[in-house]
Amino acid sequence: MALNVYKLYLSPKRKYYKKLKNILGFVPGNIKLYQMAFRHKSVAVAIKEGVKNSNERLEFLGDAVLGSVIAELLFKLYPYKGEGFLTEMRSKIVSRANLNQLSRKLGLNELIEYDKRLIHFSAKQGSLLGDAFEALIGAVYLDKGYEFTRELLLERIVKAHVDIHTLEMTETNFKSRLIEWCQHNNKEVSFEPTANPEGETAKMFSVRVMVDGEECGVGRDFNKKSAEKLAAEKACEHLKILDVV
Amino acid sequence: MALNVYKLYLSPKRKYYKKLKNILGFVPGNIKLYQMAFRHKSVAVAIKEGVKNSNERLEFLGDAVLGSVIAELLFKLYPYKGEGFLTEMRSKIVSRANLNQLSRKLGLNELIEYDKRLIHFSAKQGSLLGDAFEALIGAVYLDKGYEFTRELLLERIVKAHVDIHTLEMTETNFKSRLIEWCQHNNKEVSFEPTANPEGETAKMFSVRVMVDGEECGVGRDFNKKSAEKLAAEKACEHLKILDVV
Repeated sequence: MALNVYKLYLSPKRKYYKKLKNILGFVPGNIKLYQMAFRHKSVAVAIKEGVKNSNERLEFLGDAVLGSVIAELLFKLYPYKGEGFLTEMRSKIVSRANLNQLSRKLGLNELIEYDKRLIHFSAKQGSLLGDAFEALIGAVYLDKGYEFTRELLLERIVKAHVDIHTLEMTETNFKSRLIEWCQHNNKEVSFEPTANPEGETAKMFSVRVMVDGEECGVGRDFNKKSAEKLAAEKACEHLKILDVV
Repeated sequence: MALNVYKLYLSPKRKYYKKLKNILGFVPGNIKLYQMAFRHKSVAVAIKEGVKNSNERLEFLGDAVLGSVIAELLFKLYPYKGEGFLTEMRSKIVSRANLNQLSRKLGLNELIEYDKRLIHFSAKQGSLLGDAFEALIGAVYLDKGYEFTRELLLERIVKAHVDIHTLEMTETNFKSRLIEWCQHNNKEVSFEPTANPEGETAKMFSVRVMVDGEECGVGRDFNKKSAEKLAAEKACEHLKILDVV
């Protein structure tokens, strides 16, 4: 307790401690972990042969911890839903678009350090927010352990900021997302039927997405619309289109 | 303690409890979770509109918990390795081939219930072992919590059965795995150069894998060998070739 008073009111880093306390609801133990979580590789320095002190390693860890906490949440929230549904719901919750939004809601954008000359406001910077969110989860996990991180995520973050039941209803519309992105970036997009691979039943539809003449994704399904949807999803992934423009 | 004596020596399920204790090193709390973990969908019954009491939901949960435990292990074991290396190492450890092997080493095959008439000894059944391993992790997590599961995985399972440093050295050779599988199954396989998509630099190599005339994977890279490797990896995934034949 006395240590927390020192951190919040006397320490040279008291402003940083206060910001973090406002966001997280607790005073961090090891502040270095949090500083690392908010350090984009564009401002990181090498700590040993080629490895930088950026947030990428923490992001790897946080992504895994987040995946586990959300898996349990969904497992218990939907006792009569199959594994396919659970997987899909988790993808929606931890999608880059959703984590970016969450990151913004929590105000993490004020804490992230990155080289503003190198990064323009682009899809790339978009993922910077979600990446920092995951890295923060990794930092909390190392600082406070699994149970603490789980409580924080469920009670403070998911409950307040994630509308699971709305996510359940929304179907990510990759086709319109792709088309909007192409319009916005002056690119031509078309969906073309392609031949089925030999040996595959003729009842299948194959569709490929062409963006400025380059094939960006192929989808196959028993109906044309689903095949287009799949192809658009792959194209969005390929082109790193994360957010609705 | 008295309860454990009952479970191991007096309960009608004492044989089952004993088998589990031999494998896991502890006496399970809620035995129903473990029974579910070993129940393949081929012998599961519907518990509510279309949802079966198979191990698939537990597998979803266990996969996530396992991913998190292994992420932390690697994060701490390799403090100077980047996120790409950590991701690759985790993929190797939790690969279906590796989990199948682990499952066999632990003797889970004796506990898994499945309909032997429906499933032949095939790639499909191969994944049955690894799936049950993940479901078991899910069951232990629900029964005993994260810390317990983490200790069990690290101290009893990974330490004894997973040679991380050998895995670090082994590069999964998808090309030879694919070729062996095709020989074994009397299929013709070839690697063909294909045209690069328009707009892509001419320095890139595109290679596609044809198996019995069907395109099973395309790889692109700056050198031909890597492009072939990527194409073979995709083909292995597409054809569900999990294990070395």
